[in-house]
Amino acid sequence: MSTSNADSLVLSENANHPVNLICSLCRNFYNLGWVTGTGGGISIRERTPDHDHIFIAPSGVQKERLEPANMFVMDFPTQTYLRKPLDLKPSACTPLFMAAFSKRGAGACIHTHSQAAVLCTLLTRGKTWSIANIEQIKAIPRPSAGGYMGFFDTLVIPIIENTAHEEDLKDSLEKAIEEYPDTCAVLVRRHGVYVWGDTVWKAKTQAESLDYLFELGVKMVQLGLDPAGPITPVEE
Amino acid sequence: MSTSNADSLVLSENANHPVNLICSLCRNFYNLGWVTGTGGGISIRERTPDHDHIFIAPSGVQKERLEPANMFVMDFPTQTYLRKPLDLKPSACTPLFMAAFSKRGAGACIHTHSQAAVLCTLLTRGKTWSIANIEQIKAIPRPSAGGYMGFFDTLVIPIIENTAHEEDLKDSLEKAIEEYPDTCAVLVRRHGVYVWGDTVWKAKTQAESLDYLFELGVKMVQLGLDPAGPITPVEE
Amino acid sequence: MSTSNADSLVLSENANHPVNLICSLCRNFYNLGWVTGTGGGISIRERTPDHDHIFIAPSGVQKERLEPANMFVMDFPTQTYLRKPLDLKPSACTPLFMAAFSKRGAGACIHTHSQAAVLCTLLTRGKTWSIANIEQIKAIPRPSAGGYMGFFDTLVIPIIENTAHEEDLKDSLEKAIEEYPDTCAVLVRRHGVYVWGDTVWKAKTQAESLDYLFELGVKMVQLGLDPAGPITPVEE
Amino acid sequence: MSTSNADSLVLSENANHPVNLICSLCRNFYNLGWVTGTGGGISIRERTPDHDHIFIAPSGVQKERLEPANMFVMDFPTQTYLRKPLDLKPSACTPLFMAAFSKRGAGACIHTHSQAAVLCTLLTRGKTWSIANIEQIKAIPRPSAGGYMGFFDTLVIPIIENTAHEEDLKDSLEKAIEEYPDTCAVLVRRHGVYVWGDTVWKAKTQAESLDYLFELGVKMVQLGLDPAGPITPVEE
Repeated sequence: MSTSNADSLVLSENANHPVNLICSLCRNFYNLGWVTGTGGGISIRERTPDHDHIFIAPSGVQKERLEPANMFVMDFPTQTYLRKPLDLKPSACTPLFMAAFSKRGAGACIHTHSQAAVLCTLLTRGKTWSIANIEQIKAIPRPSAGGYMGFFDTLVIPIIENTAHEEDLKDSLEKAIEEYPDTCAVLVRRHGVYVWGDTVWKAKTQAESLDYLFELGVKMVQLGLDPAGPITPVEE
Repeated sequence: MSTSNADSLVLSENANHPVNLICSLCRNFYNLGWVTGTGGGISIRERTPDHDHIFIAPSGVQKERLEPANMFVMDFPTQTYLRKPLDLKPSACTPLFMAAFSKRGAGACIHTHSQAAVLCTLLTRGKTWSIANIEQIKAIPRPSAGGYMGFFDTLVIPIIENTAHEEDLKDSLEKAIEEYPDTCAVLVRRHGVYVWGDTVWKAKTQAESLDYLFELGVKMVQLGLDPAGPITPVEE
Repeated sequence: MSTSNADSLVLSENANHPVNLICSLCRNFYNLGWVTGTGGGISIRERTPDHDHIFIAPSGVQKERLEPANMFVMDFPTQTYLRKPLDLKPSACTPLFMAAFSKRGAGACIHTHSQAAVLCTLLTRGKTWSIANIEQIKAIPRPSAGGYMGFFDTLVIPIIENTAHEEDLKDSLEKAIEEYPDTCAVLVRRHGVYVWGDTVWKAKTQAESLDYLFELGVKMVQLGLDPAGPITPVEE
Repeated sequence: MSTSNADSLVLSENANHPVNLICSLCRNFYNLGWVTGTGGGISIRERTPDHDHIFIAPSGVQKERLEPANMFVMDFPTQTYLRKPLDLKPSACTPLFMAAFSKRGAGACIHTHSQAAVLCTLLTRGKTWSIANIEQIKAIPRPSAGGYMGFFDTLVIPIIENTAHEEDLKDSLEKAIEEYPDTCAVLVRRHGVYVWGDTVWKAKTQAESLDYLFELGVKMVQLGLDPAGPITPVEE
């Protein structure tokens, strides 16, 4: 596989360098079933006093076998590529990842095709998916109130309709981000979910916690329980 | 990541040192879906002729990526920290872990957000969850009778109600520990489970066996079977 | 384990050599539940200016423990074995793999016993299985139109009936390949699926994407949803 | 951990030495959910011109963390231990494993607490569990006819009732082995399954194939299908 230029941007022995994290996290996400068949991915933003870079995995590559040489690097202020592997195409998710960086100042954005996320969008005809009174909700931030959701809160995630081309999701994703100023995620009906966070670790924690809640919500429906229903009183 | 002091407490080449076990067991628990999104964890107590120490993973760190430098160490008799990583917060589970150490003399305590545990608490409105006549029950101790549960016994695990803040569970957890002197675990409704054991390996065996029983119990309900029902006579 | 001849055909330090890929992909497929109990497998075709070789894993060997020495190598133009491990039998899938190579010019063919694939064939009495309006469909090629399926398309996979002996599937597999010129896969009722692609990576992406769709389709049926049904209008 | 004697029986750099296979296979089985909470295990028999030895993992040890030093070794003809780790107890499965070695001349016997196996025993009140017309059945031997089951055959696995103490299963296991001369497995109601084979690899293939069939059978019941029912005619 030939690469173009600026290889120093993607070569580091530091396991926490964005490029190395993208590789190790994508292996992790593959095992979670989030990036099956090259779907889904992650983009990380690195802001230092000297630069503001976006690292993105390419389109169509086996996510569990990514290598640093596969990465695209973009200069965020000018939105120009600093590094483009000659034999690869940039991810179709790029404009969506950019929405999270621009509109929310995110440090990382994760996109999954998780089946639990898709099923949650199929189990409602509404424009949001909700779950309430589950401990894991406390891992989801609520910036308007400062801090995180509480156990007794109802988590509401907006759902946008899927489009023929992934890049055409950009407008409705941005609209959902504006309409739901507290949300750290947008579900895409029959497609998956975008989740972001202030740092790569917050994005991962939030993506895992939401996926846990999506999966739990589907199981609750299978068992005849309402994920967003009230707490049933304990029988004495 | 900077660490504070007392690094010698957490640095060992022995794979069975509590700190190294916490790291390897949390990777294990992550793969079991017990500590998704930084939830859950494990605390190990090390009693030697010279000391009585509690090792605890910090709050909010990716559990499958823990490193020895992340660990908190507490002196059990004085309940003071011997080592506090400066950039991390102690786990909100700490008072709950301490309840198992103080009230039961446990050698380790495991907390999971296992979806099977949460579903078991959602499938009953009562104050306990039960299952009967399954071989795996025999891995659960019954200290009052000396030894372990039998195949023909009914396992009863108390359920306490969740609270807004994890540390507020302490009183009800301690109450359940007192009311159910044989139990090695307490379920927390809509939250997860605390499981302890005399040693780290007993705690792990008991946590795995209970999770197996929770999962089996949920599947039985899905198939129209009663986990705590009597053994149906064999058809001749 | 003794091997016969032509060992140089299967010995390479290049991780992307077909033989090494078969070994690493079969470990991957084992973890996905595709090759349980030595079922299923993969065959890769290597065309260079100098040769046109087919690499095939043997019958009855633990797929997650394959070693290069286990591989059969066939010369495609003459359909003669260049390498036959003396202590092993060629895979019963060989004629089926050959159909994909001959009829479609495939670069690799994957056979799985995936339970999701089997269940999809059990949930219909018809000669095809369908799913519509799911993002992952876009990973499936549609050569007649050039390129890939669209989100709003309905994916149709032919199902052939299983036979007593695997090699007897050849005629009906070839017939399905001819009747469905756009398909990259054929389901075998109560058995599994054959999936091929122009390259090994395309075959893998297509096999993973189809398996994702099979699994999602089964879950939809369990939840009372129709995988091939129309998109329900959003409730305002 | 101190060990007793005869360490040379369990120390080998050969990955295919029975002791090393028990360690690596138990890690494999742990990932399959077969030996959760120290349940289940495997015993391998090694017959050479010079000796006839049985290798058995101990009771109560984390199966995914077994080490060669943990192994018990028995001389089969005299049924005396050649090696007993001083700090460990022999597996309660030992008499059951011995039944497969004595009555069937097995080369290895695997015991799992697989939830799918347990569920199959709960879904019938009869003395056998059956499934028909699934490709994976062909991995199961049928010694009376020489060779293996066919696709159109019905696989019948006897179920014995569980007892308070594992060793008390011996008589009914032996009885089932005699009554079902073709079977390579016996289900134990509410407990799990014993599976054996002529070699360790055949035992593993058969255990995996049966577990695949148990799991598929449970899913079929959940979807309203009869695992042992006839093949439904294809709709034209």
